[in-house]
Amino acid sequence: MPTSETLTTERILEATEDVLRRYGPAKATVVDVARLLGVSHGSVYRHFRTKAALREAVTARWLGRTEDLLAEITEAPAPSAGEKLRHWLSALFEAKRHKAGDDPELFATYSALITESSDTVDRHLALLTGQLTSIVEEGVAAGEFTAPSPASAAQAVFVATARFHDPVHAAEWRRPAIEDEFRAVCDLLLRGLRP
Amino acid sequence: MPTSETLTTERILEATEDVLRRYGPAKATVVDVARLLGVSHGSVYRHFRTKAALREAVTARWLGRTEDLLAEITEAPAPSAGEKLRHWLSALFEAKRHKAGDDPELFATYSALITESSDTVDRHLALLTGQLTSIVEEGVAAGEFTAPSPASAAQAVFVATARFHDPVHAAEWRRPAIEDEFRAVCDLLLRGLRP
Repeated sequence: MPTSETLTTERILEATEDVLRRYGPAKATVVDVARLLGVSHGSVYRHFRTKAALREAVTARWLGRTEDLLAEITEAPAPSAGEKLRHWLSALFEAKRHKAGDDPELFATYSALITESSDTVDRHLALLTGQLTSIVEEGVAAGEFTAPSPASAAQAVFVATARFHDPVHAAEWRRPAIEDEFRAVCDLLLRGLRP
Repeated sequence: MPTSETLTTERILEATEDVLRRYGPAKATVVDVARLLGVSHGSVYRHFRTKAALREAVTARWLGRTEDLLAEITEAPAPSAGEKLRHWLSALFEAKRHKAGDDPELFATYSALITESSDTVDRHLALLTGQLTSIVEEGVAAGEFTAPSPASAAQAVFVATARFHDPVHAAEWRRPAIEDEFRAVCDLLLRGLRP
C-alpha cells in the first residue's frame, strides 16, 4: 500500500498545518488530518500518540524554522560580535514579521497553539537565548563586549527586543516607525554591552 | 434639585467605571450609567456628547493616574539621572502590575477600551516618553548620559521595557523571574546611556 508506506511524520505535520489553517485550532481534529491524507486516524495515531502530541509537534516544526535560520547566523563568521548580534536580532524580527504578514491566518493559529504548548515554547525560547548567549560570549572573548554574566545579558537583550519578536506585538509590526524604533533599541543595547 | 447640582464630571466617570466593571465594555450603556446615578441619560449627555466621548474620558482618567504618579518622580530631585530613570521605570512597572493584579476585571475592561481610544492612548504614550526624555536630558546636562537625541533614546528605553508596562504582557508579570529580568534590562539600558 503506497499510502501507508509514504505516511511520514513530515507528511502528517504538513497535513496538520493545512487542517489547522482551514478549520482553526478550536475545530481541527485528528480525523480531519487523516481524511486529508486518505488514511485512517489510527495510522496518524501510530505516529503521534495523542492529539496534543500532534499539535505540539506541528508547533515545534513551525518554531524550528526560525531556530534553524538563526542558528546559521550564530555559527557563521561575522566581522564583529556586535554586527552578528544586530544581524541575528534583525533576522528574528524579519522572520516573525514575514510569518505574521504573509499568512496572517496561520500566524493567528500558531499564536493560539503556543499558548497550549508551554514546554515547546519554553524549549524554543531557551534555544534562542542560548544562541544569543554564545554571541555575547564571542564578543566578551574578543574584548568587544563586557558582561558579568553573558547568559543574563543575552536574556536582557531578548526581553528588551520583545516588541520586535513576541507575537503579542504583531499588530505593531506594520507601523512605519517600527524600523526606527528597532534601530534605536539595537543601538542602545549594543552600547550597553561595550566594555 | 440636589441630584443635578452634584452631577459632576467626576461622579459620572466614577459611575461609568462601576458600570464597565459590572457589565463589561461590550454591554455597558449610557442608560446604565444614568440609572446608577439616578438621573436621566440626557443629564449624562450634557457632560459627554457621545458614548464614545464618555468612554474616552474614563480611559484617559484611568491612564492619568499613572501619569500623575510618574510626573512626581520626573520633577522631584534625585541623587542621579540614572537613579531617577530606574525609579521611574520601576514605578511604571509597579503601577501597571498593581492595576492588573488588584482588579483583573477592571484591567481587562480598560485593556479592551484602550483599543478603541487610540488618540487617548497616543497622548498617554507621548506624555510618558516626554517625561522619560526630560530625565535623559537631565542626565546629558549633568554629563552622566550621552544621547545624540534624548527623545529617541527615551523612546528606545520605553520600547525596550515594553515587557514591563505594556498590558499585552500582563500575564507574564506574575512570573517569579520577572524581577530579575527587569533589573537586568534596566542595567543594560543604563549602561547604554553612559558617555
